[in-house]
Amino acid sequence: MSWLDEVKFDEAGLIPAIAQDWKTGRILMVAWMNRESLHETVATRKGVYWSRSRQKLWRKGEESGNTQQVHEVRIDCDADVVLLKIEQNGGVACHTGRESCFFRLLNGNDDRAQWEITDEVLQDPEHMYK
Amino acid sequence: MSWLDEVKFDEAGLIPAIAQDWKTGRILMVAWMNRESLHETVATRKGVYWSRSRQKLWRKGEESGNTQQVHEVRIDCDADVVLLKIEQNGGVACHTGRESCFFRLLNGNDDRAQWEITDEVLQDPEHMYK
Repeated sequence: MSWLDEVKFDEAGLIPAIAQDWKTGRILMVAWMNRESLHETVATRKGVYWSRSRQKLWRKGEESGNTQQVHEVRIDCDADVVLLKIEQNGGVACHTGRESCFFRLLNGNDDRAQWEITDEVLQDPEHMYK
Repeated sequence: MSWLDEVKFDEAGLIPAIAQDWKTGRILMVAWMNRESLHETVATRKGVYWSRSRQKLWRKGEESGNTQQVHEVRIDCDADVVLLKIEQNGGVACHTGRESCFFRLLNGNDDRAQWEITDEVLQDPEHMYK
């Protein structure tokens, strides 16, 4: 029995993967993986996901150059979420040009609460993708 | 337009929520939320999820006593993943009695790799649930 057989992919054959900065602990992004992308991630130690919109393997950084070096791979108790500790090349994980995709913070705790942007754009998104 | 209207729930009306320790940055668990549980989480500042297995609101800690104090609520660029910075009462987020659900680390990078348990059980699961 392979380690990969213990991973529980959903009915679409996918599992969510959290990418966390290996040094600061900041959560940088969440994306999906299929069996092939998880296998390739572990074999190459690079972040490889499954793009649901494009329906193909997504080798993170293949266009932007912002590849991910994978230092640690974890799985949760139900084996249905993957956690990667990564080093984000270029310091930009989000397609908006920010360090993290979680750049919006809820300010308030009632119906008037608002999502506020806490992160600046570090890289022009127009120049990230060829 | 309410902050809640900007959140993208999936076709089942759910969104994954990551609970991260507000001090150490460790990822403690991932669970699902529906609109009602996210609203209640923000209003009460306690971690409230949706149990897919029981098909009902799950006020984390209502049985075990291990409630979660929510310090920060974030959302990602696609508005389809929630991130909570929390203080885990009792120090145990996982139903196995461990601090984190991500207690298994992949050791190796080929077909012989294995999931290894890195965390000890801090609380007897049999005594966590009435």
